[in-house]
Amino acid sequence: MRKIAVLGYGTVGSGVVKVLTVNGEKIAERVGESVEVKKVLDLRDFYGDPIQDKITHDYEEIIGDEEIEVVVETMGGVNPAYEFVKKALLAGKSVATSNKALVEAKGGELLEIAREKQVHFLFEASVGGGIPIIRPMLTSLTADEIKEITGILNGTTNYMMTKMFYEDADYDEVLKEAQEKGYAEANPEADVEGHDASRKIAILSSLATGRQVSFEDVYCQGITKVTATDMKYAKELKGTIKLLATAKFKHGKLKAMVAPFFIKKDHPLYSVNDVFNAIFVVGNMVGDTMYYGSGAGKLPTASAVVGDVIDALRNPGRNYIRPWSKEKLVPEDRGTLKWRFFIRLQDSVSEKDVLGAFTEARVIKLADVAGEYAVVTPLLSEAEYEDKIVPFKEGILQMIRVEGEL
Amino acid sequence: MRKIAVLGYGTVGSGVVKVLTVNGEKIAERVGESVEVKKVLDLRDFYGDPIQDKITHDYEEIIGDEEIEVVVETMGGVNPAYEFVKKALLAGKSVATSNKALVEAKGGELLEIAREKQVHFLFEASVGGGIPIIRPMLTSLTADEIKEITGILNGTTNYMMTKMFYEDADYDEVLKEAQEKGYAEANPEADVEGHDASRKIAILSSLATGRQVSFEDVYCQGITKVTATDMKYAKELKGTIKLLATAKFKHGKLKAMVAPFFIKKDHPLYSVNDVFNAIFVVGNMVGDTMYYGSGAGKLPTASAVVGDVIDALRNPGRNYIRPWSKEKLVPEDRGTLKWRFFIRLQDSVSEKDVLGAFTEARVIKLADVAGEYAVVTPLLSEAEYEDKIVPFKEGILQMIRVEGEL
Repeated sequence: MRKIAVLGYGTVGSGVVKVLTVNGEKIAERVGESVEVKKVLDLRDFYGDPIQDKITHDYEEIIGDEEIEVVVETMGGVNPAYEFVKKALLAGKSVATSNKALVEAKGGELLEIAREKQVHFLFEASVGGGIPIIRPMLTSLTADEIKEITGILNGTTNYMMTKMFYEDADYDEVLKEAQEKGYAEANPEADVEGHDASRKIAILSSLATGRQVSFEDVYCQGITKVTATDMKYAKELKGTIKLLATAKFKHGKLKAMVAPFFIKKDHPLYSVNDVFNAIFVVGNMVGDTMYYGSGAGKLPTASAVVGDVIDALRNPGRNYIRPWSKEKLVPEDRGTLKWRFFIRLQDSVSEKDVLGAFTEARVIKLADVAGEYAVVTPLLSEAEYEDKIVPFKEGILQMIRVEGEL
Repeated sequence: MRKIAVLGYGTVGSGVVKVLTVNGEKIAERVGESVEVKKVLDLRDFYGDPIQDKITHDYEEIIGDEEIEVVVETMGGVNPAYEFVKKALLAGKSVATSNKALVEAKGGELLEIAREKQVHFLFEASVGGGIPIIRPMLTSLTADEIKEITGILNGTTNYMMTKMFYEDADYDEVLKEAQEKGYAEANPEADVEGHDASRKIAILSSLATGRQVSFEDVYCQGITKVTATDMKYAKELKGTIKLLATAKFKHGKLKAMVAPFFIKKDHPLYSVNDVFNAIFVVGNMVGDTMYYGSGAGKLPTASAVVGDVIDALRNPGRNYIRPWSKEKLVPEDRGTLKWRFFIRLQDSVSEKDVLGAFTEARVIKLADVAGEYAVVTPLLSEAEYEDKIVPFKEGILQMIRVEGEL
């Protein structure tokens, strides 16, 4: 019998207990012994829940218990998770966490401690929910130099963008619906402003480069300004709009951004709908690879956490994640990033001026949208774009970047 | 310096040498030491190629070389690859192979030998080319019970189906073009008849169940009878046609098939085009996950092989693949498999009879296809289908199964 503890009996924490119960037999086969949750740390009590016998309000009971080999941290937030995880690692216990805020802020340091102590600090569930992404990147794509990571990394906003696209609904409407269904929080800022996706692309970038990439340094634009009219244009252009997080690596430099992007119908991210996530990892030898699955949800996320627990139990002392250094890698200035731009303009802006600024731009007019038109520019840097729009900036109703061609 | 040998200097074998050269520095970092190809076994000589100095025609030179830790097998075919690989494992060397025929036929036995000898027998490249699929399934989805594996597992036929769909081309035309481009072989049978995809789904099924699934036991239908007219209907139905390999696992039983299937536009496999492959793995906790990438090609496949080499070098004695037993798992009778069926019928068959046989079937007529019509049936087993079509079997022009709804 191998023993673990769970910190936080919320959605993911209770999911971990459920996965270990429902698939207990299979898991025992794979570990070689059955796996038992010995203690659950929570401020609350859960009378009537079979877990109540295991509830403790005192973390020292877990730290001091030598039988407990792995600590699962599913509390969320940097504090007090950070102190708890650090203590567990220093006590020689492995840790599996789903906590992206903790990993983004303290991952390098915690990995370093894990390495010194020859235990695991694993966080597959912190990016892409149930999708295997961190382990494949670090244990399968080892023959490659990673050139790019681009993905749909936030389930809430992808659910909203999907609704807006398929149901011609406006932003406020779908936000309300997402909140009613429990997909979006009462304060949806972390999701809709793109901060959650920024944290995740920062974690993947730190892993890919071995240096600390901080989410505050990643230029980030949320979905709050995307409208039903934008989606109409997307349909006309045989594409859709998705919140993408992207990081490109070249000669030790990083270009990164989180923003809504147009993508075309034949792009593999086009059919990633609802709360599903998908992440492209591009290698210099393997080319494009993509990983798809549930980006959130109790059981998918718990499945990833338990996968990490099993890894820690099966491979003591075999930490496959190299700690990233404290040395910061700050993304290059946004001005250097290049793509096409989709712009909606008031009719008062002369088409001639716009086409003069963007040679070979493509003009789109929708029969049922009056008083405006749109263009898709050729490939430009953000700096060039800002420069070119100066004469008619007042007349711009919307700008959305384009991933690839349109 | 860690040393390896390569058996067969063909497309993949020379790709392995290239990956180790181009990414040598990164790989050395990850392994802890540089990795050198010491010997290459081939019947041919390669004068002028830097590899010529390492060419040997005598396998004993490799087996007897104690410096060589890993043998890469990229010859293809069961014999003599089987004897060579077995010898290498028995000599205490790990093996990384891209050879699906070998793995399908002898994988269980070779894994058993590897386990006894505490070395690796790894074959990530044998399924899905460069796509990480075997390692994620066995090292990430460990908290799940695998319920289903369904995918596009053959690049050649996917290239052909993509061409037929987007260019309204007929089968013979695209086959010729695929042969000219080197995507299809002069004798394309293994690809177009579905045997290649069958081998791959058999390997994944053996890994998922721990028992020997043989490709000859998987019902298999190729793409040779798919026509440009079928693709017209696919467009009308807002879908496309793909060669799918599917395996469903329940209570120790297996339902498996390789055949062309209709899939709808919002299905994540819809936008898997050209030589790309993608594989769905469905777990009872994580739900749907999907893995996408280059299903073939020199460098993607070599990337997967080198990934295995690196794994073997970094983790001596840590074989993560459990050998599957010799005990055969024969898929259930095809008659029990259930889906919807798309059927094209001659006008001479009365619509009333057809709708009588398939209640709630949907009738489709194309303006530019004369003398026929089509129906999509409700969910039926293959046995029920065979039974219901008896009265008008002669009038059936085509039958294609449907994955999901249409």
